[in-house]
Amino acid sequence: MVQILDKRVERSKASVLAETYRQLTQSGLSGVSIDEVSRASGVSKTTIYRHWPSRSALLIDACSRLGRAYPPPDTGTVRADLYALLTNFAEQLQTAAWASVYPSIIDAAERDPEIAAMQCGLHLAFMAPFHAVVERAKDRGEVQRDRSAADLIAAVVGPLFYRRWFSKEPINADFVDSIIDAVI
Amino acid sequence: MVQILDKRVERSKASVLAETYRQLTQSGLSGVSIDEVSRASGVSKTTIYRHWPSRSALLIDACSRLGRAYPPPDTGTVRADLYALLTNFAEQLQTAAWASVYPSIIDAAERDPEIAAMQCGLHLAFMAPFHAVVERAKDRGEVQRDRSAADLIAAVVGPLFYRRWFSKEPINADFVDSIIDAVI
Repeated sequence: MVQILDKRVERSKASVLAETYRQLTQSGLSGVSIDEVSRASGVSKTTIYRHWPSRSALLIDACSRLGRAYPPPDTGTVRADLYALLTNFAEQLQTAAWASVYPSIIDAAERDPEIAAMQCGLHLAFMAPFHAVVERAKDRGEVQRDRSAADLIAAVVGPLFYRRWFSKEPINADFVDSIIDAVI
Repeated sequence: MVQILDKRVERSKASVLAETYRQLTQSGLSGVSIDEVSRASGVSKTTIYRHWPSRSALLIDACSRLGRAYPPPDTGTVRADLYALLTNFAEQLQTAAWASVYPSIIDAAERDPEIAAMQCGLHLAFMAPFHAVVERAKDRGEVQRDRSAADLIAAVVGPLFYRRWFSKEPINADFVDSIIDAVI
């Protein structure tokens, strides 16, 4: 009996999360409505608030599906590693669902400390492969040991973010090359 | 009589815009409520919609107050010009009201074509002094004539945006120096 109940709870939670994620990718964070999540998932608002104490808690849970960890490349040179990372990242920025949702998280983080903490975690996860690549480059002596990894990563990732969300210019291979040339 | 009416209309429009701007800087674009603007400004919703055909139109009008045009520096060298521009920009990013509102515009622009067109205009206005500085550097032969100004500007402005809104790291003078060193 307990097992059946557990499964039912898991199914409810899964359908609430799936519906929240659907609304999130369609309308951004501010477009998610608990009323509408309840209606579409068939799970009552009381039950939703039993599993997630606040709207932010549910949003944070749904957002954790956005990122996707992937192992850092290890080609043997920092230039080729960065090229592989930035090319993959550029493609994600221009095609993946998270790229159109992320500004709504950045926006909410300006005012909501819970969302800000979640965004900080997402950011660290997105940047982890870059840090791994820079650390290996330092071990090989390709990048000076005392050079700030955070500065280097801001200099290569910043221009991609700028193009995707601010200037809306395409991010092509020549652009990625010019960014790597500037820092290495 | 017409003049008195005109003045009354101007006063109404001004108080609607002022209240919209207040809500905008406090809660971001998605936090602006026409009901609340009407209540706080004492101007009826019917009158508001007579002046602005849509919520987006009112938001766009209020957002046009965000940017502030300032003349590009002209120190004689591209390095000093960029340093002046980026230092000023870094300070604005870290203190000005528009910096906490801008992500909500970026977010809305993902889904609303009217807001996207307005954001494009704001972006061009923000970047105009950078283009002026790079053009002058080309005239002086400090930057190669065939080098893409857009690529260069993305490389210097992108890292600042990245730090302000994504990594939330401080933007200090050393960081600005390292960014300019990389591109010049």
